[in-house]
Amino acid sequence: MSVMWTVKAVGLGVVALSLSVELLGWLQRRLRPGKTLNEVLIFPSELACVERIFNPSSSYTCLCPFPHGVESSFSRLLRYILSASSSLDLCVFAFSNMDLGRAVLALHSRGVTVRVLTDKDYAAIPGSQIGALRKAGICVRCSAGSVYMHHKFAVVDGQLLITGSLNWTLAAVQGNMENVVVTEEPDLLRPFIKEFHRLWLCNDRAQNYRSGDQKPAHHQNP
Amino acid sequence: MSVMWTVKAVGLGVVALSLSVELLGWLQRRLRPGKTLNEVLIFPSELACVERIFNPSSSYTCLCPFPHGVESSFSRLLRYILSASSSLDLCVFAFSNMDLGRAVLALHSRGVTVRVLTDKDYAAIPGSQIGALRKAGICVRCSAGSVYMHHKFAVVDGQLLITGSLNWTLAAVQGNMENVVVTEEPDLLRPFIKEFHRLWLCNDRAQNYRSGDQKPAHHQNP
Repeated sequence: MSVMWTVKAVGLGVVALSLSVELLGWLQRRLRPGKTLNEVLIFPSELACVERIFNPSSSYTCLCPFPHGVESSFSRLLRYILSASSSLDLCVFAFSNMDLGRAVLALHSRGVTVRVLTDKDYAAIPGSQIGALRKAGICVRCSAGSVYMHHKFAVVDGQLLITGSLNWTLAAVQGNMENVVVTEEPDLLRPFIKEFHRLWLCNDRAQNYRSGDQKPAHHQNP
Repeated sequence: MSVMWTVKAVGLGVVALSLSVELLGWLQRRLRPGKTLNEVLIFPSELACVERIFNPSSSYTCLCPFPHGVESSFSRLLRYILSASSSLDLCVFAFSNMDLGRAVLALHSRGVTVRVLTDKDYAAIPGSQIGALRKAGICVRCSAGSVYMHHKFAVVDGQLLITGSLNWTLAAVQGNMENVVVTEEPDLLRPFIKEFHRLWLCNDRAQNYRSGDQKPAHHQNP
């Protein structure tokens, strides 16, 4: 009888142990978040047609001379920007890249809340997209003063940070050696959201911009 | 008798359960790596004396007019750079900040292997530290060409990445609106190490630099 009870007790112990292992494994899987996105895009980007990114389901075949169907640093950057479903907060020193301008306009016309902060001197560079964004009704604020608003970052849906050395110009994308960090890491994201909010409030007066208002100062020692 | 055994069996089950919970908790703590460093430094930095960072144990009292004993974005940046114990790989567009120059020289004289990659045009800006680094025997390579080597990053001991919009100039540190990301995240670190390696090999020819060789082009559209 006593042997039987010992066997039962050991059996019960083993069952309890295995059950608790299972339970903890399950809890751990439930509590551990999915892998956080962390990616680096290196520029200059390979040349590639980006038409398909703007019109993924269109039957239109682009006839441009660039390779089609090739994933490049720039196409990845565009995809991340176009992934916005509710908001895009953009804080960028120089913005003259037409494809990036087109992406921001597409988001705006899709109902995404777009806010753009830029440097007043650099809002007037040749090919600047700032005028077109304003014309489309996008809220743009300019940082004016003797110092540069030298950030180059974007926050997508308050969840994804895009930041680096890359200005939103053609020279930066296709010429220069540049980097862009794309991350969902909350410890990195949070200070950028805070900084955007701070700068947005700092520059709350309507700062109308007329093309040719001011030419950029020589940017010799940024 | 049977009641006694039931009590013992239940007791054993409880003990087994709590022991396994303890064991799993311990395993989880052992297996989970320490929290990865992720920090953002926002500039312009508050003005603060950084003398104590260079000479923490010295009895010398700095008489400069800046606040003493204040932690700023710049003092944190200096600390991260000075934390190098084996290597510093620096890839920076413009480098004229004297305190940052002093930090790199201090690392070199402490036996840390320092490699510096910079843009040839910007190696000759007023106050450039590049000449002083070369004079001290630090290996400097310049990226020459029609495009900019526009990166602004450093890798400390192959483990810590410092990157952002901030050029290593006084205007950037004390004037501009800038950001620096400091991270140990391997997925972010790895591509920067690879990029440094690639650019270092690309620019392997001895590119001697004489002060005044070349003046920076106007940096209107970076």
